[in-house]
Amino acid sequence: MDSKFQKIRNDFPILNQKVNDESLVYLDNAATSQKPQQVIDALINYYQNDNANTRRSVHTLGERATEEFEAAREKVQKFINAEQSREIVFTKGTTDSLNLIASTYGEVNIQAGDEIVISIMEHHSNLIPWQQLALRKKATLKYIDITSDGQLDMQDARKKITDKTKVVSIAHVSNVLGVTNDLKEIAKLAHTHNAIMVADGAQAVPHMSVDVQDLDVDFYAFSSHKMIGPMGVGVLYGKANLLKQMPPYQFGGEMIDFVNQYDSTWTEIPWKFEAGTQNVAGAIGLGKAVDYLNKIGMQNIANYEHNLVSYVLPKLLEIEGITVYGPHDSNYHNGVISFNLRGLHPHDLATALDMDGVAVRAGHHCAQPLMKKLGVVATARASFYFYNDKKDAYMLVKAIYDAKEFFKI
Amino acid sequence: MDSKFQKIRNDFPILNQKVNDESLVYLDNAATSQKPQQVIDALINYYQNDNANTRRSVHTLGERATEEFEAAREKVQKFINAEQSREIVFTKGTTDSLNLIASTYGEVNIQAGDEIVISIMEHHSNLIPWQQLALRKKATLKYIDITSDGQLDMQDARKKITDKTKVVSIAHVSNVLGVTNDLKEIAKLAHTHNAIMVADGAQAVPHMSVDVQDLDVDFYAFSSHKMIGPMGVGVLYGKANLLKQMPPYQFGGEMIDFVNQYDSTWTEIPWKFEAGTQNVAGAIGLGKAVDYLNKIGMQNIANYEHNLVSYVLPKLLEIEGITVYGPHDSNYHNGVISFNLRGLHPHDLATALDMDGVAVRAGHHCAQPLMKKLGVVATARASFYFYNDKKDAYMLVKAIYDAKEFFKI
Repeated sequence: MDSKFQKIRNDFPILNQKVNDESLVYLDNAATSQKPQQVIDALINYYQNDNANTRRSVHTLGERATEEFEAAREKVQKFINAEQSREIVFTKGTTDSLNLIASTYGEVNIQAGDEIVISIMEHHSNLIPWQQLALRKKATLKYIDITSDGQLDMQDARKKITDKTKVVSIAHVSNVLGVTNDLKEIAKLAHTHNAIMVADGAQAVPHMSVDVQDLDVDFYAFSSHKMIGPMGVGVLYGKANLLKQMPPYQFGGEMIDFVNQYDSTWTEIPWKFEAGTQNVAGAIGLGKAVDYLNKIGMQNIANYEHNLVSYVLPKLLEIEGITVYGPHDSNYHNGVISFNLRGLHPHDLATALDMDGVAVRAGHHCAQPLMKKLGVVATARASFYFYNDKKDAYMLVKAIYDAKEFFKI
Repeated sequence: MDSKFQKIRNDFPILNQKVNDESLVYLDNAATSQKPQQVIDALINYYQNDNANTRRSVHTLGERATEEFEAAREKVQKFINAEQSREIVFTKGTTDSLNLIASTYGEVNIQAGDEIVISIMEHHSNLIPWQQLALRKKATLKYIDITSDGQLDMQDARKKITDKTKVVSIAHVSNVLGVTNDLKEIAKLAHTHNAIMVADGAQAVPHMSVDVQDLDVDFYAFSSHKMIGPMGVGVLYGKANLLKQMPPYQFGGEMIDFVNQYDSTWTEIPWKFEAGTQNVAGAIGLGKAVDYLNKIGMQNIANYEHNLVSYVLPKLLEIEGITVYGPHDSNYHNGVISFNLRGLHPHDLATALDMDGVAVRAGHHCAQPLMKKLGVVATARASFYFYNDKKDAYMLVKAIYDAKEFFKI
């Protein structure tokens, strides 16, 4: 399998460069992923041959663009096994998707005294929209805690989710702790209490096979750019019966049925939620990314990444002075590895790694409440994808030792 | 000048194709514009060399991406002569920009009994957000009428804008009538009554030199994809003092200062309004589009398009059975020409033109209240850009004669 994945690396032109005179080792995939030439070519092909506005034009280019755009929707539908293609709404990205739910479903359904349950490991994009909704509505926001090894505390989940709960919204995969949450179990809990289940899938969909029907989530949000697709486009999956009941999020072209001077009516889902000219090129590029991922196979990607983590995690844990957040058992830890080195600020550590060509992120990873819980202000974070290899993993470890030597720590 | 514009045409690979065995004549530029190879190359270059998430990473690619993204913001700032680069907010497009203002400035500042003034020629994206805001707030929505030849009725504007008016929001250029509105005069009127002035610049920025300080508008919205830039990115210009007072629109990463479990504080403008991963590639592509347009010169583009209209408009008006909407004097009519042919539904007309390779749009152009005012359900619309030439204009006229012959009308 490794040789197959070696070849894959050649599809990503950006990886073939020097940074600070060293070969680039890109380990910031949780922030954004790189794009294979096939996806870049899809953009070139669209802009060189088919570019037009969709659903507005009867001319040939317009029909071609519309067909490709809707074909991309169907690819996404099948990729996450949604029941219907109209359950796939194209958005700007995960943040846009989650804000959409909070501002439409949330605005209509949350009343004073209701409870919204999220977790302490949420990314700000799945935290602040609910926090601000709770403040607006005088609802209560509750946080599911994590266990001492950084997993979602399911016992606490059972306490926090009650009959007062109207919405449960949880990350499928943490962008800091490298853990995958048992969404299916949480969705069951939510539904037992007649709450809806929302999931932030930004860190999950790129790395594993996701089946929204099997998980039985009501909404599921993710971004193209983290799954080798173009920037500026993302997805909100929603069950058709819920999407149909929700008011629109934005108003403008193509989301209407009739517009009178003083009132309007809305068109069918999914277009009701797609006001204005969409990122057609982006959606088509995302469709190509889905093709590419399918060709490798999501289970193969998950296995490959698991092997990488099994290789690198023990090596990182051996480093004197390192703290790795989340589980230390690679069976429970995926390719997002956050860590700190005693005596060195994570920003300085990341800068030092960059001198060796190793790109990792340092910061609070848009998860300040989690940082507080972990007792830190920031961490470094290395995040792997299927085009990374053992050499990249080795270079990360080596670069950390180099940094230790340089800073004499 | 024409020979210079002839060469420009070669920069647009999509134009060099056959549609229904005829050379493509793309006249749907008001829906979306085509992209020069230079802009496509900017996307390729970004994804092949520099792709990273901005403002989150200290590594080399991250810093490079951030630099290019912020450089694009400065290009846009200079292009519309905004005073400061932080007055440029990147959005998904014009629709997103206008919804942002209605949902933030509007939500906070509009009270029951207040008046919002728009015009009857507005695109749905500059109509429904205000209509729905007015409904939510029990405010009054008022429409400035048009004159018999389709120009904004300035006398009516003076009547409708009063001391009760809190917001005036008007298209700079109509997407149906081919008229340019005197924004500067309307902004003066609005300010006299202490209202703010919002402009939908989607159809203006691509075609003329726009100076937001000279116009003295408070907000100005436009889209990349209509000005030879990539899809999925747009701009909201806002005066800094107003943007600073406004609450955020979306919540998520990179728009915060501090996030606690139960409250949060927001970062500085423009980033307060840019939650989540932005369309970095799109913004950089828009920056390249601005470079390209600057190289030709916006005044040259305006002159060139005026010459085209002066050539084609009289030829269209000569056609028996045609109705051209908006002014018939080419001194008052820009490159957006809407028309109907007696005895033929505009969709059938557009389909017939497509058989000759001529791409025009047919429909209500997201302006149903205007259609009602004009007494039609739909029109055909040919819209020109600087890469169109007299041959394109000639082919449009010829194709209409062909359609008349075919349908025997």
